[in-house]
Amino acid sequence: MSRPPSDLGGEQVEGRRAVLELLRAGHRRVKAVYVSSAATRDPTLSEIEERAGAAVKIVAAEQIEQRARSDVHQGVVALAAPLRAADLDDLLAARDAFLVALDGVTDPRNFGAILRSAETAGATGIVVPRQRAARVTPVVAKAAAGAIEHLPIAVVGGIPAALDRAARAGCWTVGLDERGDRTLFELDLADQPIVLVLGAEGRGLARLTRERCDVLVRIPMAGRVASLNVAAAATLACFEVARRRRA
Amino acid sequence: MSRPPSDLGGEQVEGRRAVLELLRAGHRRVKAVYVSSAATRDPTLSEIEERAGAAVKIVAAEQIEQRARSDVHQGVVALAAPLRAADLDDLLAARDAFLVALDGVTDPRNFGAILRSAETAGATGIVVPRQRAARVTPVVAKAAAGAIEHLPIAVVGGIPAALDRAARAGCWTVGLDERGDRTLFELDLADQPIVLVLGAEGRGLARLTRERCDVLVRIPMAGRVASLNVAAAATLACFEVARRRRA
Repeated sequence: MSRPPSDLGGEQVEGRRAVLELLRAGHRRVKAVYVSSAATRDPTLSEIEERAGAAVKIVAAEQIEQRARSDVHQGVVALAAPLRAADLDDLLAARDAFLVALDGVTDPRNFGAILRSAETAGATGIVVPRQRAARVTPVVAKAAAGAIEHLPIAVVGGIPAALDRAARAGCWTVGLDERGDRTLFELDLADQPIVLVLGAEGRGLARLTRERCDVLVRIPMAGRVASLNVAAAATLACFEVARRRRA
Repeated sequence: MSRPPSDLGGEQVEGRRAVLELLRAGHRRVKAVYVSSAATRDPTLSEIEERAGAAVKIVAAEQIEQRARSDVHQGVVALAAPLRAADLDDLLAARDAFLVALDGVTDPRNFGAILRSAETAGATGIVVPRQRAARVTPVVAKAAAGAIEHLPIAVVGGIPAALDRAARAGCWTVGLDERGDRTLFELDLADQPIVLVLGAEGRGLARLTRERCDVLVRIPMAGRVASLNVAAAATLACFEVARRRRA
């Protein structure tokens, strides 16, 4: 069911924190770390150079600009072996499973921000669909700030079928939906194996996905605009699970 | 103490939700709404055209590209009267004051995302320093998704002095800092007038700002990377205040 490993992306990593975490984690072979000769020195850059050793190539600033796919590379671009997709059933089988399924989140900065928040909250994996998924592009990797090195990502044929598998594996599936009949903060099953499900920016959960969720929860909103960015919603949901698990 | 009104920015608004909210709110004079002749029809665009009336100008897609300052304009760019800065003392005097002070948040997408989350959580105002503040550029306005039309923004000489004024006005000042001796989720004064204080991406709170806060709270982190985007941290803090106020 999983993509060929190279299809998940992640080969190009830009930005100091993301590159440093790639090197610290040591899970992937690092082919080269290009550093701009004009890069401002800081402790992070020193640690990057120390860890990368012979893989460091000091190049002209224009060469970095040419290679970079994001506008926030901070003078550092690394090339590494692609990420390997994780197996969904392995992720579901974990006793403390805490997964985040993304159904149609396509904006790369949002995707990266969700990876970062999820990893920081203690999530144990991400589930994305093969179609309409944001690959781990350089912009995703930058926004994830290193989270891609630690957080397993499973690629599935479709989110509804993945939720069926989650249910059979004994995981609760919790969709974020403005029509939810209880709020996120009333969710009292976070200490059990759980899959949080988030829909596309703007449109929310697709009908088929919504129907597969055991529970729908909404985020209570107080403002006049009353709409939350999908990465903000994911952050709140992940940290609510983490808060409940600690309590 | 406040900037001249035009200096806060906000004159150019891009993206359908942000433009629609500009028109719905009706707080600012709208000079023109440029719509690409190639724009995909949807209910939001129809409502924009209905509300803007004679201000709508259908133009070629290239003209939108030339005017747009963000890459996610969705075929719609509006020009409006600039935002007017709010008065800090007015914001502090509100019985339910719930302010967010940003000390050195400069990334425009983060600034906009914080405005959106804060407004959605029910914050009553934002405080930014005159120096090192992100103006409300088109990228900020787009990321804020309409929140700038409703959320007052005060511009101050410096955040430490603003926190002194907040204390004199009887508001609690709560800084988010990884060295905080309690967690955000142990914050039990959220039902009182409050100013949440967030520092710059990467560096966190400046020393002078940190020293002026009544309380420092940290967000408990579980992952290997253990770092949170400033907009994600702001979202968690704002919704924790909202959750406590509802309880």
